[in-house]
Amino acid sequence: QSRGAEHREKGVKSDHEKQYVGFATLPNQVHRKSVKKGFDFTLMVAGESGLGKSTLVNSLFLTDLYKDRKLLNAEERINQTVEIVKHTVDIEEKGVKLKLTIVDTPGFGDAVNNTECWKPITDYIDQQFEQYFRDESGLNRKNIQDNRVHCCLYFISPFGHGLRPVDVEFMKALHEKVNIVPLIAKADCLIPSEIRKLKERIREEIDKFGIKVYQFPECDSDEDEEFKQQDRELKESAPFAVIGSNTVVEAKGQRVRGRLYPWGIVEGKCSAQEWQPGGTGPGRTAGLW
Amino acid sequence: QSRGAEHREKGVKSDHEKQYVGFATLPNQVHRKSVKKGFDFTLMVAGESGLGKSTLVNSLFLTDLYKDRKLLNAEERINQTVEIVKHTVDIEEKGVKLKLTIVDTPGFGDAVNNTECWKPITDYIDQQFEQYFRDESGLNRKNIQDNRVHCCLYFISPFGHGLRPVDVEFMKALHEKVNIVPLIAKADCLIPSEIRKLKERIREEIDKFGIKVYQFPECDSDEDEEFKQQDRELKESAPFAVIGSNTVVEAKGQRVRGRLYPWGIVEGKCSAQEWQPGGTGPGRTAGLW
Repeated sequence: QSRGAEHREKGVKSDHEKQYVGFATLPNQVHRKSVKKGFDFTLMVAGESGLGKSTLVNSLFLTDLYKDRKLLNAEERINQTVEIVKHTVDIEEKGVKLKLTIVDTPGFGDAVNNTECWKPITDYIDQQFEQYFRDESGLNRKNIQDNRVHCCLYFISPFGHGLRPVDVEFMKALHEKVNIVPLIAKADCLIPSEIRKLKERIREEIDKFGIKVYQFPECDSDEDEEFKQQDRELKESAPFAVIGSNTVVEAKGQRVRGRLYPWGIVEGKCSAQEWQPGGTGPGRTAGLW
Repeated sequence: QSRGAEHREKGVKSDHEKQYVGFATLPNQVHRKSVKKGFDFTLMVAGESGLGKSTLVNSLFLTDLYKDRKLLNAEERINQTVEIVKHTVDIEEKGVKLKLTIVDTPGFGDAVNNTECWKPITDYIDQQFEQYFRDESGLNRKNIQDNRVHCCLYFISPFGHGLRPVDVEFMKALHEKVNIVPLIAKADCLIPSEIRKLKERIREEIDKFGIKVYQFPECDSDEDEEFKQQDRELKESAPFAVIGSNTVVEAKGQRVRGRLYPWGIVEGKCSAQEWQPGGTGPGRTAGLW
């Protein structure tokens, strides 16, 4: 998205230079309109509790969505069912507004019996489709609130030797309805060779079970080589291994979001850069790899 | 146990010095007999797969119990039920033999529906009690094979915000039958403050649900102050946070069992020493704390 903004800015400049018939300003108009209106993005996060879903969302959008969250104790969790909780936050970046809706699924996979625990989630997604369809079929289509889920981040435990049965069942129940991006959660508890092995295993199992996860679009053929390389690396590193952090620690004199272990600091910075297995110093690591 | 051996060795020496009536050699005889016969120890490990049960057992006893283990893939695990698998290994330490039996429970907690997944485990324990009772009631009591489970290490996920419902149900089903030692598995993915918080929460929940975990015996009042202090620290640090490692890495020129992260090395050495939150160098950490 930041690249898109850059492109548009370049477009704006060249429009000012040469004054032609007028249709050259159309992208500009689209740009201005979308800046004014802002964007909607609905992101669902799913996965068993404790995998850092809230932390990652907060780290990604540099916000604090779950200020007044109360963690349930084991007693309450025994009687808990899967809920759907929506958090909305307005984010602004260089004047561009984003209405971010996070759909959280607390309770998923926590029960002793998890049979059909993905049912409330599939129901919710179906409802949003139906609602949008009804609104689109109605008379007043100007201010339709689009609540359809754009993307679902599915958190896989870093400790499973691959996918667990509940992971397979969840993804199979949802892959026709929503873009699933599988993530290896809390990857800072795995050493690089373990991450490689786990990624491979997950990729194999996704193939074998015929699970359709989100496929990144082809990058434009006119992009520069560096970007293409980055894009390739990003695609090859799926399923992404992530870490998140909401605390600021000091690394090499700089204050970064990270986790301070007795044996080193893990920085929770976003980047697609691969781990350097030889690098043992703090600050060499990224939040996404 | 190593302390016990030390005591016995001291006893041997003083018996040689002064030749009295003879009953002073009784402990010596008991010692010799038990050396000859060796000890039996049956340890059960339980907890969902991927929490490092096998790794910890291998690390603890410096052996490789699971040489020919084949990990199941997600497809096989869907149809998997909880099994009971016994591994036996003879270990010798300074001439003292130990017949170690590890009772493993693969498949526990892995299914989508985990209702009563502890049933095969409670059944197994009950069977061993019955078998022993029958043998003890029989005529030939000399060579009774005691297969009763002495201790059960229960692995708790470091990612739960406390105990999960399945943890509570498992421990409640077994706490009257076997000594349960709850462990926080793979604790190297938690920073010190998170470990403290999780330990506190687990202790609270164990209290609240009336779960009876193994209580360490009082140490003898004639032990020296240092040992008493160590004993107190050990008791206070329950439930123990553990890590295990089967690979040897190089730390500060020494070869140790440990985990080599890009940001530092975690040493998997056994010790009850508390974490030093300030210490960021490699090799400052222990396998049990």
